[in-house]
Amino acid sequence: MKNLESLALRRRENVLEILDQQLLPHQEVWLKISNVPQMIEAIRALKVRGAPLIGVAASIALAQSAQQGQSHAELQKEAAALYEARPTAVNLMICMDRLKKILAQDLSQQACTQALDEMATTIFFEDVALCDRIATNGAALIKDGDRILTHCNTGGLATAGVGTALGILRKAHEQGKKIHVYVDETRPLWQGARLTAWELQKLGIPHTLITDSMAGHLMSLGRIDKAFVGADRIAMNGDFANKIGTYSVAVLSHHHRLPFYVAAPMTTLDPECANGSQIPIEQRDGQEVRGTWGAPLSPTYNPAFDVTPAHLVQGWILDSGVYTQTQVQQGHLKTISQKGLSTC
Amino acid sequence: MKNLESLALRRRENVLEILDQQLLPHQEVWLKISNVPQMIEAIRALKVRGAPLIGVAASIALAQSAQQGQSHAELQKEAAALYEARPTAVNLMICMDRLKKILAQDLSQQACTQALDEMATTIFFEDVALCDRIATNGAALIKDGDRILTHCNTGGLATAGVGTALGILRKAHEQGKKIHVYVDETRPLWQGARLTAWELQKLGIPHTLITDSMAGHLMSLGRIDKAFVGADRIAMNGDFANKIGTYSVAVLSHHHRLPFYVAAPMTTLDPECANGSQIPIEQRDGQEVRGTWGAPLSPTYNPAFDVTPAHLVQGWILDSGVYTQTQVQQGHLKTISQKGLSTC
Repeated sequence: MKNLESLALRRRENVLEILDQQLLPHQEVWLKISNVPQMIEAIRALKVRGAPLIGVAASIALAQSAQQGQSHAELQKEAAALYEARPTAVNLMICMDRLKKILAQDLSQQACTQALDEMATTIFFEDVALCDRIATNGAALIKDGDRILTHCNTGGLATAGVGTALGILRKAHEQGKKIHVYVDETRPLWQGARLTAWELQKLGIPHTLITDSMAGHLMSLGRIDKAFVGADRIAMNGDFANKIGTYSVAVLSHHHRLPFYVAAPMTTLDPECANGSQIPIEQRDGQEVRGTWGAPLSPTYNPAFDVTPAHLVQGWILDSGVYTQTQVQQGHLKTISQKGLSTC
Repeated sequence: MKNLESLALRRRENVLEILDQQLLPHQEVWLKISNVPQMIEAIRALKVRGAPLIGVAASIALAQSAQQGQSHAELQKEAAALYEARPTAVNLMICMDRLKKILAQDLSQQACTQALDEMATTIFFEDVALCDRIATNGAALIKDGDRILTHCNTGGLATAGVGTALGILRKAHEQGKKIHVYVDETRPLWQGARLTAWELQKLGIPHTLITDSMAGHLMSLGRIDKAFVGADRIAMNGDFANKIGTYSVAVLSHHHRLPFYVAAPMTTLDPECANGSQIPIEQRDGQEVRGTWGAPLSPTYNPAFDVTPAHLVQGWILDSGVYTQTQVQQGHLKTISQKGLSTC
């Protein structure tokens, strides 16, 4: 199988490894993934995370399993189990659907194994290409001197490529625009503090880490110009799910009349989902909220995502272009989604 | 000196102790405060905190210092140092002004010591009474079944009495109203997760701990009816400073057309402060934001407070009543402030 290399996933001489994102930024530990159950566990524990990357990683794990001689029936079960590893991000499901179509064909074991590997490899490089296009499209919206808020992690750690929202900021920086990024720490799992700050540091992009509760204050002081976030699933009316706290960023941006953009590959569009109310929201263990400090007997609530309604979004930055509210209202997301990856 | 007893401060047989709020909820440790420098250190480190309580605690520490025979000149220096221990909450400054007036009188050492002790004791019991009145005034705004958001800690730990915003919730609960409290964890120092959740647990009030980033999502789901917060300083036009993140709660409440109330004793009114832009915002060590998880080399920003403009406030719940936007615009806060504590 072809070698693959991204910031948080690599396959070298048929050995699949992921960078354990739960240990960043203090330790950079690569975990060998030998089978599908290990990949499912890594996805559930957010050792591998980011809507695009979990789709890519799951696909490669299934292809590896076929390569190891897993039976056709077992591969079907594994595809179904991977499909359900996390419920909100749709990229995983769309990737698994593509692999399941291969499994549904009447192929020899060898042909099936080869087709799965080709598809997984295609998905990997597609994601790299999608990220590049998003970055180019989004960077055009950034002016020299912009002070930009972002939430969660949407960079090289979340995709096979340069990222979505963070890929845009990277591209703008590489274009020589002087930007400053305010990074929401992103409670409860610190994807901003741990991962985005780490990526920005590595890239040499000026940034400031803040608590999620400080973004509004900064906006009130006129210190933020625009906000860019990623998405885990975009409904056909433009509503989208993303990391918990994204909705608050959208409302705060709206209140301060700041442009709020969502960036994602077209693999994040869900043609089956008419609006945000149909997106399932993953509920996670309350201990993630309670953490070290929370009163030990107090009940907690831990939705991993929230839904931002389309009317708060200034633009949808996809690989095929930047879409306005009017275009989204006219059904452009449905059209793009129906065209499928031929747009790539 | 008279014995004094509150949830987080006590004076028993002339021994002054504070409950170390940095160790809650896991350890309940009482720290002996033997002199003013120790009290200043405890205030700066948030071992004793809450706008009303730091005023009370500082007053008692100065009275203790007089009792121990500190010279008049030293007492003046100590009053000045206490005054500056934290810059945003005005209660501390107003208390110190009251004690400094005594120091400015031509009194014998014994008379001065006695007058300082009487004033500190008065301030303590005034705060208890002010809290009771706030609680009664605010509880009238709460309906059976209300689901209420609060931020930071405004309870028995933050005052000498039942608290401000949290005292209101306690009173409503004691009146038999079935309420549910959503507690913002309140990053970066976890006053919600550590202190408010702990108090609510002790009081048996149903509650759920959430991250600061979840309040907007809960509002969008229709699961919050109103919000109550405290204040560290209220300007004459009704703008007020409170724990960082309060402003976001106000904007989110406004967006969802939910009543947003601020509760405070009249000792939180600053007659010298025309509007919120004049309130100094304490900037604290960035390590509080970076914490254990943040990327170690990333710059941080750590304002301890933000300012909420009056137009986002549904009502100002003071000890003397609940004031509307119209009343505040008409200058009622100035009138109350000028009347002084004769209203008590």
